[in-house]
Amino acid sequence: MTKKNDALAELIAALKTLPSVGVKSAQRMAYHLLQHDREGAGRIVTTLQNALKQIIHCRLCNTLCEHEICHLCSDEKRDHSRLMIVHMPSDVISMESANCHDGLYFVLMGYIDPTQNRDIHSTGLEKLLDRIETGEITEIIIATNFTAEGNATAHILYEALKNYPCKISRLSQGMPLGSELEYIDSGTLAQAVYERKCLKN
Amino acid sequence: MTKKNDALAELIAALKTLPSVGVKSAQRMAYHLLQHDREGAGRIVTTLQNALKQIIHCRLCNTLCEHEICHLCSDEKRDHSRLMIVHMPSDVISMESANCHDGLYFVLMGYIDPTQNRDIHSTGLEKLLDRIETGEITEIIIATNFTAEGNATAHILYEALKNYPCKISRLSQGMPLGSELEYIDSGTLAQAVYERKCLKN
Repeated sequence: MTKKNDALAELIAALKTLPSVGVKSAQRMAYHLLQHDREGAGRIVTTLQNALKQIIHCRLCNTLCEHEICHLCSDEKRDHSRLMIVHMPSDVISMESANCHDGLYFVLMGYIDPTQNRDIHSTGLEKLLDRIETGEITEIIIATNFTAEGNATAHILYEALKNYPCKISRLSQGMPLGSELEYIDSGTLAQAVYERKCLKN
Repeated sequence: MTKKNDALAELIAALKTLPSVGVKSAQRMAYHLLQHDREGAGRIVTTLQNALKQIIHCRLCNTLCEHEICHLCSDEKRDHSRLMIVHMPSDVISMESANCHDGLYFVLMGYIDPTQNRDIHSTGLEKLLDRIETGEITEIIIATNFTAEGNATAHILYEALKNYPCKISRLSQGMPLGSELEYIDSGTLAQAVYERKCLKN
């Protein structure tokens, strides 16, 4: 194998580390960039270099940003007493477009999983306790996903935070907007019955 | 046009009254039955005749059944103090397969819509008030769909029933089981935040 082919193999191996990219896709990407879009390849190099240099974690909420404190944490108009804990920066984007939370966020950047050595005291997550210990937070909204990992993370967070003097809530589970009983899965239906909302006692 | 063609046209017109069947589908159905499946056509005639003769509305819950009282209403093992109000018999089937409600049902057999002359006192629905007035019911669970018509029906039901001495609840709204924030619609996300479940005060 020539030197050049080693470079190609190494590029393919590097591309294969992207999420949802297998060896076939990595090969297609590599051939496309080298054969048809060397300019695009150059743009990837530059933007990735810049991002690696400039993007850091917000000192307060742990999200990815270009400044020490992200624009949400430094926004004085937001309610600094309510803290919503989410999984990833993409969840902050979803929540912001739903326009239903004007408090702050804390971004876990992954699930909490003590079996994988990722607990509440892991790198980055110690900022969460620091933030709560300032005493400024009066309500913590646990907004992890309703998947097995998200539920486990929510449970671990609740256990770690329950002794702080603040209210703790979690997103409600139930029927999504516009849903019909006939087409909804049994698990969700059961949850909607168990957590039914009292209209009148 | 011959007599025979009139019969065909009438059959097509009759089939076209089925839900989600347009003129093209009705034609295809008619040709199929007459050309390839006269036995099937005969079976439709017989089963429909029998159903029309035998299937009535349950005297208590208004669902479709073959007896004066349906098998759920006559089941002594069920909790006769909790009444769940649903839209259609298919919702009873969904709820029963979710295995989360051991009370009784009341089936509206459609939405309540006073603008279409269908209110709480319309044919069939008077049985609902009769049932509540027996005093046996201690909780009414409104389980209409989370569509515009379902929400309007829930509101009308609540207004009509709120003065009876029983608890009234509605299925919870929120995140469906297994859902991830990133992929859920904004409306549901907002509802899940507004109706967040308090874990600790």
